[in-house]
Amino acid sequence: MSPSPPRPDSVVLLSGGMDSATCLALAARRSGRVHALCIAYGQRHRREVESARALARHFRVSSFETLRLSTGSLFHSSLTDPAQALPGTRGRRRPRGIPSTYVPARNTIFLALALALAESRGADRIYLGVNAVDYSGYPDCRPEFVASFRRLARLATRRGVEGRPVRIEAPLLHLSKADIVRLGERLGVPWGLTWSCYAGGSVPCGRCDSCRLRALGFAQAGVDDPLRPARRRRR
Amino acid sequence: MSPSPPRPDSVVLLSGGMDSATCLALAARRSGRVHALCIAYGQRHRREVESARALARHFRVSSFETLRLSTGSLFHSSLTDPAQALPGTRGRRRPRGIPSTYVPARNTIFLALALALAESRGADRIYLGVNAVDYSGYPDCRPEFVASFRRLARLATRRGVEGRPVRIEAPLLHLSKADIVRLGERLGVPWGLTWSCYAGGSVPCGRCDSCRLRALGFAQAGVDDPLRPARRRRR
Repeated sequence: MSPSPPRPDSVVLLSGGMDSATCLALAARRSGRVHALCIAYGQRHRREVESARALARHFRVSSFETLRLSTGSLFHSSLTDPAQALPGTRGRRRPRGIPSTYVPARNTIFLALALALAESRGADRIYLGVNAVDYSGYPDCRPEFVASFRRLARLATRRGVEGRPVRIEAPLLHLSKADIVRLGERLGVPWGLTWSCYAGGSVPCGRCDSCRLRALGFAQAGVDDPLRPARRRRR
Repeated sequence: MSPSPPRPDSVVLLSGGMDSATCLALAARRSGRVHALCIAYGQRHRREVESARALARHFRVSSFETLRLSTGSLFHSSLTDPAQALPGTRGRRRPRGIPSTYVPARNTIFLALALALAESRGADRIYLGVNAVDYSGYPDCRPEFVASFRRLARLATRRGVEGRPVRIEAPLLHLSKADIVRLGERLGVPWGLTWSCYAGGSVPCGRCDSCRLRALGFAQAGVDDPLRPARRRRR
């Protein structure tokens, strides 16, 4: 019998949210070395970055890197501009279509940076925690976007030319939020270290899209969220 | 007769080199507003950024933005690591295949950031000065890479979903360096403001890949390069 092949090294795009935390838990189980990459792009919810760091420590990654993008006027989004209202907050109903929290080309930028890190560190895989089921309507969370980036990654890199392209893993793509909570529970994700709320406060607002989706996922999975705001869910 | 449609606004990825300068000249002629985006990623030849700024001023762009990437260990390349030798310099022969100056996923990152800027500013086009003829062997300068990014840009963005994707223009893709010099001459590119040398000195080294390709282009087009080092070409 030949020995089993070494486990591949991975880059995990780690935002600090529940999805990327679950991806990290999965990557940690499947990979050799894990390189966590957290990107600070001027988002309101900077607390995410602290959550990412705590999660990276919890899962004992080989490296944790925070990349700061001096975005200037790069991103037009309510997620980076405190002057804009977030959907769901301040009594606003969530509009149909792509919400104002959409950040132009965000996952393209994130995957491009992860691709550079993977190639520089000799990692074989990139884990990205997008999901297309209970998603927020973002175009760059759809299966066709991920498939298109896979093709691009083969063409864009030395590794692709050499016939060993970096693989893009999106293991949550077809899972509901409840499925993600169940998977995270099995993998031992410390939910208390994660952060989802968009609003940037010290406790989750309970009203933004991200808080709502999180609450739905935990409720449907029948799991208690340690971050669940005690009173705010009542109305 | 209906009035002619307004000229589209454009984002130009401006490195400060002769190719992106020619792209800028072309975009300035064809576009309404022009937004020049220069990305500082820790390259040795930081003088490029000053050239980009001077070119943006020369062509009176609507906005000029320098985006600094705190790359850390993101890029493994002789172009960002002064401890590595550049091909062609220090008596080294240029190796076959992809050279050490390849920067992992660079054009993917650049296009992703330009895509975000285009969508945020409402620009319709992105100009990228890649060319595949006298190119340096980089995978992300090939036509198939550009075609793949075009597909990705449609899927990744709000504009794509809404049926008016940002167009990726690579007008130099099939031109030789000599063709680019001829085109730039017609468009009035101020070659003296451009910068090509990789080595990071105050005058071009005349020996790195980029200096060699530049010299070849000017020689074949029969145009004098105002930056041409007087003595170094002899051996």
